Amino acid sequence: MHRAEQLAWLSSRAHELATSDAWKCALEAAEDDDPGTDLKHRANLRELRREFDRATKLSSELVVRDSVAGSLAKHAWADARARSDFSSFAPHLATLLEIAREKADLWGYDDEPYDALLEGYERGTSTAAVASLFDAMRPAVREIAAGAVAKSAAHVVALPPGPYPIEAQQRLNARIAESIGFDFQAGRIDTTAHPFCTTLGPRDVRLTTRYMESDFTSSLFGVLHEAGHGLYEQGLVAEDFGLASGSAVSLGIHESQSRLWENHVGRSRAFWEKWYPVAQEAFPQLVRMSLDSFLEYLWRAEFSPIRVEADEATYDLHILLRFQLERELLNGSLAVGDVPAAWNEGFHELFGFAPADDRHGCLQDIHWAMGGIGYFATYTLGNINSAQLFAAARREPAIDMALGGGDYLPLLDWLRRSVHDHGAVYDPADLIARATGNVPSTEAYLVHLQSRYLS
Amino acid sequence: MHRAEQLAWLSSRAHELATSDAWKCALEAAEDDDPGTDLKHRANLRELRREFDRATKLSSELVVRDSVAGSLAKHAWADARARSDFSSFAPHLATLLEIAREKADLWGYDDEPYDALLEGYERGTSTAAVASLFDAMRPAVREIAAGAVAKSAAHVVALPPGPYPIEAQQRLNARIAESIGFDFQAGRIDTTAHPFCTTLGPRDVRLTTRYMESDFTSSLFGVLHEAGHGLYEQGLVAEDFGLASGSAVSLGIHESQSRLWENHVGRSRAFWEKWYPVAQEAFPQLVRMSLDSFLEYLWRAEFSPIRVEADEATYDLHILLRFQLERELLNGSLAVGDVPAAWNEGFHELFGFAPADDRHGCLQDIHWAMGGIGYFATYTLGNINSAQLFAAARREPAIDMALGGGDYLPLLDWLRRSVHDHGAVYDPADLIARATGNVPSTEAYLVHLQSRYLS
Repeated sequence: MHRAEQLAWLSSRAHELATSDAWKCALEAAEDDDPGTDLKHRANLRELRREFDRATKLSSELVVRDSVAGSLAKHAWADARARSDFSSFAPHLATLLEIAREKADLWGYDDEPYDALLEGYERGTSTAAVASLFDAMRPAVREIAAGAVAKSAAHVVALPPGPYPIEAQQRLNARIAESIGFDFQAGRIDTTAHPFCTTLGPRDVRLTTRYMESDFTSSLFGVLHEAGHGLYEQGLVAEDFGLASGSAVSLGIHESQSRLWENHVGRSRAFWEKWYPVAQEAFPQLVRMSLDSFLEYLWRAEFSPIRVEADEATYDLHILLRFQLERELLNGSLAVGDVPAAWNEGFHELFGFAPADDRHGCLQDIHWAMGGIGYFATYTLGNINSAQLFAAARREPAIDMALGGGDYLPLLDWLRRSVHDHGAVYDPADLIARATGNVPSTEAYLVHLQSRYLS
Repeated sequence: MHRAEQLAWLSSRAHELATSDAWKCALEAAEDDDPGTDLKHRANLRELRREFDRATKLSSELVVRDSVAGSLAKHAWADARARSDFSSFAPHLATLLEIAREKADLWGYDDEPYDALLEGYERGTSTAAVASLFDAMRPAVREIAAGAVAKSAAHVVALPPGPYPIEAQQRLNARIAESIGFDFQAGRIDTTAHPFCTTLGPRDVRLTTRYMESDFTSSLFGVLHEAGHGLYEQGLVAEDFGLASGSAVSLGIHESQSRLWENHVGRSRAFWEKWYPVAQEAFPQLVRMSLDSFLEYLWRAEFSPIRVEADEATYDLHILLRFQLERELLNGSLAVGDVPAAWNEGFHELFGFAPADDRHGCLQDIHWAMGGIGYFATYTLGNINSAQLFAAARREPAIDMALGGGDYLPLLDWLRRSVHDHGAVYDPADLIARATGNVPSTEAYLVHLQSRYLS
């Protein structure tokens, strides 16, 4: 309760400052000045105004109520998950949905409340646009996932037994992170139970991963994923820290950077042609495994009930389900009490089996308990964006050739120029269009999945 | 610099709140109300008034300047220490001393500026009182330390070689922490490079320790020391969190709790009569070592240049030196540029040799760089208090007998009643006098050192 009170106080104080008269006056004065033609300056003003308007639409009372409800829900969720008892979490989820709808009403939306929430994570898009991308990809993703799972089941490949000593993993991970351009003068890699990336200040980016002695790829792909986030953060303009021009634009763009380095670079044959010999030197038992078998191991696919354990081929199915359910919850077409049944039914439709219990089903993720409704969609948007960006970058012959030779810096340079340098100046969809020459589309992503998992 | 700016902002904001008119009015209104006879309520008002008065004597400008100087000094110190180059740290130390003197002048003092700084760590005592305790003990402590070191050198005892697996260490540490009453429902033990104890909120006490595979006693005594701090924090009245009646009274009392469990309980023969067989089960190589040899190992003494590596017999010599130097620095009788020479000379006088370089000398500790001038004395005050409290507790036959049988809860109960329950209601010296029947004195401590190290 002490922490809940502290968080509520901080939320309220932050809201007070973000909506204060002093801040309003300063913003208006800046707007009254001639903004000139500088794109970044205009974008910074535009985004400050957007944030101010969004903040002032909420009352302090609502902000505090939201914070307290989230604190209570997180505890209730952890407890409910441990006991696999959805009913004890249900009233909290109902409260959070009510608050989410209240916020959506205050912010306003064109078609449905989900629009207003999505705007907070993925500026400038709409629920309908996301749904149309997702609907278009659903049949292909299901087919690819099923094919990949069947292929893996027919030919099981195992890594040679460990131990893969943790210190050797750390050395290899650091070498690889450095080779893709992660700047250890402006960041660190540490150990936690769940990998994450966080930015403490300009040029202070912290990654974490976790280690299994039985499988060195677990910590390594944790590092590649989080370093993808970290490279984006390190690439933002440090002098503009806190302004739109020095900020990441959206979760869907952030996730595109992590997925690009993790899956498109890190799980490619060219990558391991360079690094597999190095890994074999670090872990002599790998000498018994051919590069082809190792790649098969990296590309194995399995239907898991748990999202965070899902592989590349099956991951999006988890997101499609969540997006559909939270949209229905917000629209009121799905009642909170019916979530477990709807989850299990939807899961069965996509995966061909139902989770054993709610702990492995609708209680597995913390997102809703954190009030993060409208967030899940950005994972699959990230996957889509990553493929579109990577394909565009590889159209430059020098980048493609460098990747083949194990030189990742021309690719990083392209991402710096095409994505990182722009911060949040453009809306995500515009950023993608400017970088790739096309509006966001699932095409490159489906081509990638198909060629990796069905050929 | 980003962090320095954030810290400066927080300092300034905290100072603004602590000295605001609103707070002043609330405090005055509370003082105007009839305080009644409730001792705790009166003490809470008194301490709030003391904090308010101390805060209002400093200007915002000074608070911010202090914070920025500290941030810069910490970086300069880390860098200077790595290169063993005092001259690059000297200007920062000079600035911090100037600020410390400025604060002391604003707060006011009777005899010397050190009084005003000490008051922030050890309420109600004076530099002269501390100096007289330290002067009185100096010859005896030197003699005991020299004797203990000579004894250890004449008969070197080594622990059987490791590995002492870390998981087995963690299990043993947790069992022992639980046996002395540490409440794992209101706290945790984690791993860090340097052990510490911190309280995140009422009933949320976090300890850390560090592990050496070659010596299980390193992590265990880390846990015993920090759990001593943690038991104090867990023993404070949770409902009074943030008020004097629910706060630790001083660093010297805090340290008495950690030292009591670490040295008086944890390094005693009775303690290991109970736990050595358990340790031998966890670490079979200990079967080759007798209990007597193990105790000799625990009681070994050595002159080390580094305070944090010092053993019980030699620790206070490090503090006596620091107390003398920082007092002279504040009084202006020692110039910053002369610190290395004064350190080496003073060290030689106490230990019989000089440190190899400033890194192992005057640059070893972070305290001055953190602006913690007047802090070091509290370590030895903690040692003195720990012995006086422990001796008083053992005068109760039930406690003494329980300790002999490996039951620590009667001792904890006595500490709860005599120390923890009172929070910061009494001044440290009064608290000791009420608990032990005597004013603070080095008597029990010297008896303890003598009997452990010279008999």
